[in-house]
Amino acid sequence: MTAAARRMVVIGGDAAGMSAASRARRLKSRGELEILAFERGPFTSYSACGIPYWVGGLVNGPDELVARTPETHRGRGIDVRTHTEVVEIDLAGQRVLARDLDPHGEGERWYGFDDLVIATGARPRRPGMPGIDAPGVHGVQTLDDGRALLESLEAAPVERAVVIGAGYIGVEMAEALIQRGSRVTVLERGDQPMSTLDPDMGRLVRDAMSGLGIDTVTGAEVTEVVTGEDGRVRAVATKMSEYPADLVILGLGVAPETGLAQQAGLPVGDYGGLLTDQAMRVRGYDNIWAGGDCVEVLDLVSGRTRHIPLGTHANKHGQVIGSNVGGGYATFPGVVGTAVSKVCDLEIARTGLLEAEAAAVGFQFEAVTIEATSRAGYYPEARPMTVKMLAERRTGRLLGTQIVGREGAGKRVDVAAVALTAGMTVERMTALDLGYAPPFSPVWDPVLVAARKAAATVRAAERH
Amino acid sequence: MTAAARRMVVIGGDAAGMSAASRARRLKSRGELEILAFERGPFTSYSACGIPYWVGGLVNGPDELVARTPETHRGRGIDVRTHTEVVEIDLAGQRVLARDLDPHGEGERWYGFDDLVIATGARPRRPGMPGIDAPGVHGVQTLDDGRALLESLEAAPVERAVVIGAGYIGVEMAEALIQRGSRVTVLERGDQPMSTLDPDMGRLVRDAMSGLGIDTVTGAEVTEVVTGEDGRVRAVATKMSEYPADLVILGLGVAPETGLAQQAGLPVGDYGGLLTDQAMRVRGYDNIWAGGDCVEVLDLVSGRTRHIPLGTHANKHGQVIGSNVGGGYATFPGVVGTAVSKVCDLEIARTGLLEAEAAAVGFQFEAVTIEATSRAGYYPEARPMTVKMLAERRTGRLLGTQIVGREGAGKRVDVAAVALTAGMTVERMTALDLGYAPPFSPVWDPVLVAARKAAATVRAAERH
Repeated sequence: MTAAARRMVVIGGDAAGMSAASRARRLKSRGELEILAFERGPFTSYSACGIPYWVGGLVNGPDELVARTPETHRGRGIDVRTHTEVVEIDLAGQRVLARDLDPHGEGERWYGFDDLVIATGARPRRPGMPGIDAPGVHGVQTLDDGRALLESLEAAPVERAVVIGAGYIGVEMAEALIQRGSRVTVLERGDQPMSTLDPDMGRLVRDAMSGLGIDTVTGAEVTEVVTGEDGRVRAVATKMSEYPADLVILGLGVAPETGLAQQAGLPVGDYGGLLTDQAMRVRGYDNIWAGGDCVEVLDLVSGRTRHIPLGTHANKHGQVIGSNVGGGYATFPGVVGTAVSKVCDLEIARTGLLEAEAAAVGFQFEAVTIEATSRAGYYPEARPMTVKMLAERRTGRLLGTQIVGREGAGKRVDVAAVALTAGMTVERMTALDLGYAPPFSPVWDPVLVAARKAAATVRAAERH
Repeated sequence: MTAAARRMVVIGGDAAGMSAASRARRLKSRGELEILAFERGPFTSYSACGIPYWVGGLVNGPDELVARTPETHRGRGIDVRTHTEVVEIDLAGQRVLARDLDPHGEGERWYGFDDLVIATGARPRRPGMPGIDAPGVHGVQTLDDGRALLESLEAAPVERAVVIGAGYIGVEMAEALIQRGSRVTVLERGDQPMSTLDPDMGRLVRDAMSGLGIDTVTGAEVTEVVTGEDGRVRAVATKMSEYPADLVILGLGVAPETGLAQQAGLPVGDYGGLLTDQAMRVRGYDNIWAGGDCVEVLDLVSGRTRHIPLGTHANKHGQVIGSNVGGGYATFPGVVGTAVSKVCDLEIARTGLLEAEAAAVGFQFEAVTIEATSRAGYYPEARPMTVKMLAERRTGRLLGTQIVGREGAGKRVDVAAVALTAGMTVERMTALDLGYAPPFSPVWDPVLVAARKAAATVRAAERH
């Protein structure tokens, strides 16, 4: 005698949703658990983070960017319905209304669930302004976006490209377009590119981008996408000026896609992302789970939630949800806000809090900046880097680290990320036993040099 | 009215000794503290770790390898006496006997001290066997060794070179000689190269070295350096065979140079290194300090002392000693046994305990090995790497990590080094917020993949 199978319904077929489905499937047989996943688009389990490299010609796509196709998932016992959009969540009835986007398909139908996983992702921010929907204006959020952009790039030579927004996706797309031979201008509303860094570190990025031939215009408030007689984009206008453009990329970041969840009454945080508990259950609900770009996560340093859309988090969330739905136990304790990015040979990384973020949650701190090299100074290709470190006053606890440099700079941020997770003081960090050999590091690793200066500064501040 | 200056005497003018001197000098004026440093050789503050790269032609030497010359130190108020060897420590009399090695110099003289810093370093192991002192047999411990080796290499073409010992210095020298166009054979007594790795990981190194054109002969017990009629090295003989050689490098590691200290009755550990307290005072003595390659350090994972001759530790020891002698306060909490090395494009790293080391101190553990790539699989130059991880049974605490791979593999060991320092479990490590972007890492960093497998294995073991 077997009990009827429970049903797990997943909304969204990308990293978080399909990781959850795959993990649950490994733990529970088909007889125990039916898994049904709805995806609006044609693809599942793909790397949106790879799109800039596809556009830049470093990666073939979209096939290479798809980790698992719908067919693969189906072969493993997950009923994936692509081109199918969930349009309503009925919590009281424990069911979702799914619409087949194929006009000749099934139309709308209700599906009951025992466990529901919301993995609806994020949507790119699109400012409401004239011309924003004109041909030649591209987002880079989905593989379909990537394909449309490539068609645009291949249809006619793009002499001038304008990227709106100098965050991660903006600078990565600037690199991609430079590699395709375009002249690139990046328009940024703020005072510096990379608002994920402190302004002094953002300035280093700006200088380096300039050296790479990328113009960055800051304080640029875009007012209009100017179109030509053919209706295509011709330029981007700001309050102050106009920048000719054959192509425009929107790199303004993304917001959690939680309209559906909010209509159902599920709780969201300050950034519009769903709020979950340690097990990735939506707060207050036993059998509703959420993960990926549609949730807010606990920042272990600030103690607040934030919205950090990153594939690496989405995959972890999915694993945790799948383990729990599958009858195991796992938690996602939170993040420390690590991010790393590159523009050509420039590497940019951060973890923990920026100065403004630390101040906003009430920390008093010392901030120090040092210059060092990636390898022993005498070793070939020792490249310079700048490391900035924030440490709390009194306790000396590490609060954040930012790095801007060349090859060998970016992933050094991981040392600070682990130290933050462990609540380490900068004094303790000065004695960390990091890997040393001339091809890998100076005898004092740059992170240790920063920790030494931070520790000395905290001590000096106590004496006053 | 000023008190008479105290005197700090330093034995050994390399990393630990001169870091201690420099740090103390920054904290105390000449009127407060006189600093006298004795160095047997001609150089101070140099990077012995850079010698393989000098020999390989990547680095100019020896000037580039000297961080601070005796003149620089003197200009900063440190009285450096080069070519001067301390031949006796008189603890009761608080004085040392120094001998001027210049036959026309001052001869022997006693110098009193208030604080004594022992930084006598390590000496290369030289097996007592026929021919070991023949021309063409070279150690690579000092800059003079490096110079002699280069002269030998430049005097006549070296078609065949034999390296005795396949530890760090042995494999680095193998790389250097390959780069100079020699055929290189490495003779290793043990079953695998890199006894600092578990045998299964050492095998990967051996295979990779073979691919680089370096022959590694294991189980090779060297019995004799065979010389020709000219007295120069002609071959190296083992119990089983004979290997033709125009040049022989001794890469058998080093032992703490503590004869002087032991004659004075100072305490040494199992490896012959001086034993110190947290502040780097020699145990049981208030004003005798020791640091660098002549001390044993506390291994924070095993709870025992070990001898780890590495410039990065020597510099930290010197900083700690100099701070304390200078009236400040600092400690060296210990090491986790991190080391990283490369042979051509092969990167080799470890931290924490090997299987045999963990077992020897009574740990029960699970060991797992995974394969992963340095970047997202679809990104160009994603290079494979193997990560092995040891976790304690029951607690799941990380005990050690070993990595063998190509570009981007080695420094990933730092994540495990910090996690070990923090006493993290592999379960907690699975959620670490490490930097992710396709050029830097797959969506699951290789260290996280290993941690996931280790955590699952520890859980599974508990169920039995």
